Formats: sequence, structure tokens, C-alpha cells
Amino acid sequence: MTASAENPLRVVVWGENRHEQLEPHVAELYPDGMHNAIKAGIEENLGQRAVVTTALLDDPDHGLTEERLSQTDVLTWWGHAAHAEVSDEVVERVHRHVLSGMGLVVLHSGHWSKIFQKLMGTTCTLRWRGEHDRELVWTVDPTHPIAQGVPHPIEIPEQEMYGEFFDIPKPDEIIFISSFTGGKVFRSGITFRRGHGKIFYFSPGDQDFPVYHHKDIRRVIANGVEWVATDRPERRIPVLLRYDTGDFFNGQGYQGPLSDEAKANEVPA
Amino acid sequence: MTASAENPLRVVVWGENRHEQLEPHVAELYPDGMHNAIKAGIEENLGQRAVVTTALLDDPDHGLTEERLSQTDVLTWWGHAAHAEVSDEVVERVHRHVLSGMGLVVLHSGHWSKIFQKLMGTTCTLRWRGEHDRELVWTVDPTHPIAQGVPHPIEIPEQEMYGEFFDIPKPDEIIFISSFTGGKVFRSGITFRRGHGKIFYFSPGDQDFPVYHHKDIRRVIANGVEWVATDRPERRIPVLLRYDTGDFFNGQGYQGPLSDEAKANEVPA
Amino acid sequence: MTASAENPLRVVVWGENRHEQLEPHVAELYPDGMHNAIKAGIEENLGQRAVVTTALLDDPDHGLTEERLSQTDVLTWWGHAAHAEVSDEVVERVHRHVLSGMGLVVLHSGHWSKIFQKLMGTTCTLRWRGEHDRELVWTVDPTHPIAQGVPHPIEIPEQEMYGEFFDIPKPDEIIFISSFTGGKVFRSGITFRRGHGKIFYFSPGDQDFPVYHHKDIRRVIANGVEWVATDRPERRIPVLLRYDTGDFFNGQGYQGPLSDEAKANEVPA
Amino acid sequence: MTASAENPLRVVVWGENRHEQLEPHVAELYPDGMHNAIKAGIEENLGQRAVVTTALLDDPDHGLTEERLSQTDVLTWWGHAAHAEVSDEVVERVHRHVLSGMGLVVLHSGHWSKIFQKLMGTTCTLRWRGEHDRELVWTVDPTHPIAQGVPHPIEIPEQEMYGEFFDIPKPDEIIFISSFTGGKVFRSGITFRRGHGKIFYFSPGDQDFPVYHHKDIRRVIANGVEWVATDRPERRIPVLLRYDTGDFFNGQGYQGPLSDEAKANEVPA
Repeated sequence: MTASAENPLRVVVWGENRHEQLEPHVAELYPDGMHNAIKAGIEENLGQRAVVTTALLDDPDHGLTEERLSQTDVLTWWGHAAHAEVSDEVVERVHRHVLSGMGLVVLHSGHWSKIFQKLMGTTCTLRWRGEHDRELVWTVDPTHPIAQGVPHPIEIPEQEMYGEFFDIPKPDEIIFISSFTGGKVFRSGITFRRGHGKIFYFSPGDQDFPVYHHKDIRRVIANGVEWVATDRPERRIPVLLRYDTGDFFNGQGYQGPLSDEAKANEVPA
Repeated sequence: MTASAENPLRVVVWGENRHEQLEPHVAELYPDGMHNAIKAGIEENLGQRAVVTTALLDDPDHGLTEERLSQTDVLTWWGHAAHAEVSDEVVERVHRHVLSGMGLVVLHSGHWSKIFQKLMGTTCTLRWRGEHDRELVWTVDPTHPIAQGVPHPIEIPEQEMYGEFFDIPKPDEIIFISSFTGGKVFRSGITFRRGHGKIFYFSPGDQDFPVYHHKDIRRVIANGVEWVATDRPERRIPVLLRYDTGDFFNGQGYQGPLSDEAKANEVPA
Repeated sequence: MTASAENPLRVVVWGENRHEQLEPHVAELYPDGMHNAIKAGIEENLGQRAVVTTALLDDPDHGLTEERLSQTDVLTWWGHAAHAEVSDEVVERVHRHVLSGMGLVVLHSGHWSKIFQKLMGTTCTLRWRGEHDRELVWTVDPTHPIAQGVPHPIEIPEQEMYGEFFDIPKPDEIIFISSFTGGKVFRSGITFRRGHGKIFYFSPGDQDFPVYHHKDIRRVIANGVEWVATDRPERRIPVLLRYDTGDFFNGQGYQGPLSDEAKANEVPA
Repeated sequence: MTASAENPLRVVVWGENRHEQLEPHVAELYPDGMHNAIKAGIEENLGQRAVVTTALLDDPDHGLTEERLSQTDVLTWWGHAAHAEVSDEVVERVHRHVLSGMGLVVLHSGHWSKIFQKLMGTTCTLRWRGEHDRELVWTVDPTHPIAQGVPHPIEIPEQEMYGEFFDIPKPDEIIFISSFTGGKVFRSGITFRRGHGKIFYFSPGDQDFPVYHHKDIRRVIANGVEWVATDRPERRIPVLLRYDTGDFFNGQGYQGPLSDEAKANEVPA
């Protein structure tokens, strides 16, 4: 989707907003919450091509009702301390919307969120350390739209370290690989397509460091928001359909796995 | 893992075994059940390099206890009519074992099983028709070990049709693409790596047709069983570990996301 | 690159233009040459977002001078009867421009052109038959921009058959898979990134059939033209650079592989 | 191919053998030449499962005659100072054998060899520095056979630095990613399939450091040698074949692109 001022992307920045409430040093870095820093970074880059709002864990339904999601082109996700508090019902709803075509940008410790784990099918575990390491973000896919407009490498003076092995499926694309003080490496910018939805995972960003105020990081997140926005004209989840011989375009809903004969033989449950 | 007569693969063929009980025409094609036909095909090809047993939906714990799985190198999965009857607990157990290194071969309508959906993160839906279509299985990755020893194409005189769009993540490898009478196509032999485990999905095979008696199909399944068997010396799930600066090899278990300060501020739940 | 009327894509449609001169039935199908049918299809879909010109084998330098290429955003390539007549010098020039960022769309029998073989590194051979087979083009990557706006499947009433095994590197993306009367299959719409350039190969299209007049095929080619256009601001080939410790952004040109000491020892050639 | 003492892999280690002759400090590190250190490392790991010989740039035909290559299962390639001296004829011959099924392991500065460039289709350029940097080799594909038996990470105390962007096609598999003192990263262990051949590129190894005496590096190279050995029973290059309707298995050689009618019209060249 090519966003424009006439037809802007509808972006929802989801934030857990707990560290900012519980830890004074985080509140100092992000006085309006990390979600608002992320929001500002998207607005700064996309301007009138996006209308950005926020939704928080403590909002009713975590701010992610069916109605809200159905009017969302791209959702960004940051969570850490309270992954377990996200309701399974909302996770199912977000999952369904992603498979139906809503774009998803997963940020930093969102790697361990329920929604990312559900989409990946793996543990999404990694190695980490919060020790003021320098991170360098190197581009390995220089023609990718998400890699445009940032230096090679992006330098982040202080950041939490994330290291391999990162237990994810093989990404569709690896755009960035990071190194950290001490020599750890991490596939830090990666894409996945799931159902009719596109996903961008980007690891830089932590509550303890001002990473979401970093100009280049904000640009990458904005690039990612634009890239995950679907080009498809409609939102629809893939379904099982039976096609008669010679029918290419209509299909019929699924009627169950057993023949009528077998169903008659079955003892009712 | 290179299996040998001294160190054979321990293979469990899991079968739903319902169609064979409920539908006389299936019982006629598979008088010992589809699971035993699949088992025979693996034995026919791997000989003493494999020890093959079966486990069934109606066995206690579906035959898949923790003890059994911990002694299983490769699990094959065929289900169709009763996906919903597979207990979530067993699905979690199998999932954990796959991520820990157990090989998994998913067959035909197993594409819609709970375990495959959980590993893929997508709907795993497709197009289908059970109308005696001819299937041709073409090799598009001729150097892959799974593609060895079979003609190009494999001809299956009668088979259920499966067609695209098949809602799965981008496979790590596409080995086979099938066409069917009428012109539908399907990515019919594909691999995925998840956690420490390897997965092969192979679509040919249906209760209504004698596909599991087909020599070439049996060879591919046996090739797949050998390929998914892990080369790793131990079974272990990936975990989250904290590494101190300068520590590459030990790591520490995860202590939770919040600083001590923040934890003290939290109101107990 | 998002093309616009203010900043249109500069597209060159390259045509061999021999069949049209030598074979009356081709001239009848394509009275203005296949190149002009391809050009019209791009214009029909991109409108003012593209400025399309043509270049022909029999033009001086095959119409592909350094100056022309340096002002070309996207080149499309159709060749068949006269691959061998394309000069190696022009092939080197096009290759350099692709690696520097020029987009390339390779059509149909262009699979066996010198430029495609040079970019792929393989034989690019396949199976074929020119017998009025019906081709169905199925989308297997429904979120890809190139797949937008066309039915699933695209039906081509008569077309040359192309079949697997197609000897190419594993594509970055497989967007379309085709089937043909008789059951052959082919990876018919695929992408590759090479250097700073993006490549789309699309197989439908033959001199013996009116495929380049087909509305959906024209749409896919136009989508491909937009997709291969680079997002990078400059055209530059990747080069070998030496970076001093602590230097991330400048680098120095390569001075040769041997130490001064060794060079002094070398006997002059 | 599963090698055994009865049916060992026939491995040829190709070496340029110039630095060892021209630079005393290299001769000191590798008194028998780097090629013999590489050979010893393969033998140390594969034992009787491989028969390893060497071939050198200054041998007649660079030691790579048609006869020699036809009896070679796996070729390893190390070159640096004298890429340009390798004859195009030998490069064509090796290329043909790789596409026909011979395995190829390309080592370190072999990234810029004629044969690797020809197989990749790109410039194969990168960033570099020879300054005694420490290299850490991290496994990102822990189930891959090539990653077995080595620590995570492999530590190389001193090594030439190679950094991204590495201008190669997207690898089929990324097994290792390295970091270097100063923070550069590199996709250091990668695989490609081309034609009927398998290729492993592994970057650690330099004439100025004793990397080929490093136990873990030797293990990875040996693993790579086993992995690239083909499973196919015959060596054959993919060819263009015409298949009649209903013919799946025979095909006919290519008769040229033009109809008889058109050929008659052509003016002889």
C-alpha cells in the first residue's frame, strides 16, 4: 500500500506502559511513555501519510477491540514486563487480524510476547544482557525498502545486548544484523509473511536506554510500518474451500471430513 | 543423524485410525490401518536402519507419553477426521519435543492438525477436492536428500486434490510441487526448521486411495524420516539465558523483567 | 521507488524483434512487434507513472549504450532466436548496471539469454513444448506487490509449455507457479536481488501466442516493473573496501593482495 | 552421500600456493603450504571416509584436468593473490562440474575467485582489514549438519576482518555469522545450490594467521566437505529438453528456436 495524505495509514502503537510507571529512570527517559516516543518517531517520518494513535495494556480490552483492529492498517507491539497479562482472547483477535492482512511491527522485547510466539511457533528465546553495550546495526539487504535512509551501520551508543541463537523460524528476509560490545551478534531486522499479513521484527529499543529517541531507529520503524501495510484491497483470513472440477474461482465451505455413510455409523458423542 | 543397523532410528508412526473403523471402503484399502501401511513403507526402505512402532489416537495419552516421546527420534503424523480430539496437553508435549530436536513428518491432511498449526502459526488452509484426480509430483530441488530415488515426476493415478493458496509460512525448502487433473498446483513436499527440530510436510496420501502402498511415495516418506532425524547429540529446548560481559558459554537463567526497585513498587496481584 | 507522474519511471523495453520479421504468423499476432505490445501493456497499467521506450537487437549497440542505461530505471528483456548475437560487451554493461541498481524484468525465453545466465550462474535450462497448452498461473505469495490485481489463477488459453526442472538458483521469492495442459508445472514468477539491483523473471509470453495482449499478463509485467525499480537514491556497484579499525564509513580502495615485501620478491610478469 | 571407509569421498584441495612462496611469515605459519594444512584438517576429521589430494595453481592445467575433475567428489578452493592467473578454460570446466554435481567448498579470499563470481553472478565484494582482529563465529542454524561438533561461538584469536555488505545472492542457508573486534559482522558460513551441485562458503582462514590449524575451523571445513558431496547417483548437467504431450520421462534435444519456415527465410550468416 502506498500511503498518502489523502489515504493515510492508520497505525496503532501498542504499549505495555509498566516500566514507565514503576521505574523512575525509565520515566525520566520516556516522560510520555515509550509508546508516545515510538508514535512521535513514526509521525516524524511519515508525516501526513500516517494517522498514529496509541493503545495500552491497561485500556479496556488492552485497547484492541474488534472494532479498533478492523480499522487498523498497522499495529506496532512493545511489551516486556507483563507479557503474561495480555489476555488470550486479545491475542487470538490480533492473530486473526494479522493473518487477514493487518501489518505488524514487533519491537525489541516483544520477541517474547504471546502474539509473536503464536505467529512464529517457536520459543523466540535468545541471549541477553543489560549492560550499556554499544550496538551497531549493519544492513545486509541494501535494496530493501526498510533499509533506506539510514547509515551503514547505525550506531546506538548504549543498548541492551541481544544475542544468537534467536529461536525463530528462518526469516523471509534478513535486513539487519547487529553486533554488540563484546562480540555478540543478532539478526536484528527481519521480515515474515503469515497468512495475508506482513510482519517486521526490529530488536533495537529498550526501556533503560533512549533508543526510541534515536533518529535512525525511528526511521527504520517508520519504514517498517510502511512496508508491512498490505497491498491487498480487502482484509480476509485464508479459509479451507472445496473446488469442483473445472471451478477455479468459487469454492464451497468445508462440510466436514467424513462421508455421510461414516457419519451415520458414528456413535454420537 | 546417519542411522545404521547398530544405531537405528526410533520412529513412531502416529495414526488417527478412524476412517479405517468407520468407512468400509477405507478398511478395504488399508486392512491393517493406514498407520501400518506407512510403517511398512518406512521399513521397506530403511530396513535395519530404523525401528518403527505405531501410536494411535485411541491409545492412552494418544500413545504419546513423555516417556515415549523422549525415546523417539522421528514422529510421523496422519490425522483428518478427529483433529479436535487430540488433547491440547499432548499437542504441547509434541511441540516441546519438536523444538527440542525430535524430527516430525506431517502427512497429507495432517496439514490441519493442531500440532502443525501450532508450529506454523498460520491457518494451514488450502483448496481441495476428493474426485479421483491424477497427481504428478515434480522435483524442483534435485540435490535434496529427500528427492533421491524417485522418478521425475512421481505419478499417482488417483488422489485427493490439494491446491494453492496453501496458508503456510514460506518453507525453508520446496522440494516437490504437484499438479492435479484440471490444473491445480500445490507445494507438496516442503521443509521447515523450528527450534532444534526439523519438519517435513508431504501431501500425497489419502484414506480414499491406495497412496501409501505406492512405492515412490513410500520412498519419499522414508527419505523424509531420515532427513528430519536430528544431527544434534542431545535433546534440549532453546531457553532464554543472560550472559555476562565476557561470558560466551555459560549464561544464567532468566530472573524476570523488572529491576528489584520496580518489583518493590509493584502492588501484589 | 514510488513512481509518480512528476517523477516517472524510465523504462526501456528491449526486444529481439526477429520472429516478427521472419515468421508471418508472429507478425500477424504482433504487427508492431512484441516489444511494442509489452510497452503498451506497461503504459496501460502505469499511465503517467512511467515513460516507456524500446530498444532493439538491430539498433547500434543493441540500443543499450552506457548513456542510455545510465538513464534507465528498469529494463525489460525478451530474446529467443538470437541470444548468441547479443554482444558480450553489452551483456557486461547491462550486468554492471543491474548490480549498480537498475531494475531488470526478464520475460519468457529471456531465461536463456546471456544476461540472465550471467546473473544466475546456472544453465537456466528447462523443459518445454510449443503445442497450444493452456497455462494456469497460480499465486503462492498473495501479499506480494507483484501479485496484486490479477485473478487466482490467471488463465492463458494457449501458451508454450515450460516445465521443471528449471535450473536456477533458489529464488528469493516465488510469487507464481504455473501448470500446463498435461500436468507440467513451472515456477513462473520469481524474484532475485543481485548487488544493488532487483530482478523479476516472469515466464508467460511467447511469439506464437497473443500472450502479451492478455490483460492480466500485462498487469503482472507492469507490477514487476514497479517492483524492480530501486529505492536507493544512487546507482553504484558494490566495491571492495578496506576499513581501518574504528572507521565505519569511509574505507579505502583495494591496493592488491600482497605485502610490499612479497611484491618486491615477485619476478615481474 | 554418506561416505564410508569402503566408499570414501574423493576430495581435491586446490591451493594457489603463492603467499607461502613469496612471504616468509606465511611460510613459517604454513611450512607445507596452506593446502596441506587444509588437507590435514579434513583427514583429521573424516579419517577413512575421505581420500584427500591437492592441486596447485602452478600444476599443468592448475591440476584440474577433465579427467581429474570427473573423479572428484568435492573440490575445495583457496586463492587470493593470483585469481587473475586462473585460466578461463579451467574456470569453465570447474563451473560445468559443479553444475553437474561436484561439491564445492570455497574458503576465505576464494570469495573473489573467478569460479565463485561466475557461480554467484555478483561482484562478491566485501569490507576487509588485516589487523589481528579477534573473530567470533556464531551458529544461527543449530540443526544444520555443518554446525555440528563446534562450540558456540568458535573463537579465533587473530584473523583478517571481513565485513558486510557482502555482495552475494541471498544464501540458501546462513549457518554462521561472525563478529570481529571493532564490531564488524559477516555472514561467514553460507550454502548455495547451483544446478546439481552444492556449495559451501566459509570465510575464516587467512595466510597471515594460523587459522587452518584451528581445531574447530578444521571441523567445520570437514563438515562442509561431507555436506556438499552430492546424493545423486550420476554426474550430469541440466539440459534443455523438449517433451511431447504425454511424455514425462524422455524428452528430446533442442533443435533451435526458429520454425523451419523462418529458417528458410533467414539470410545465412
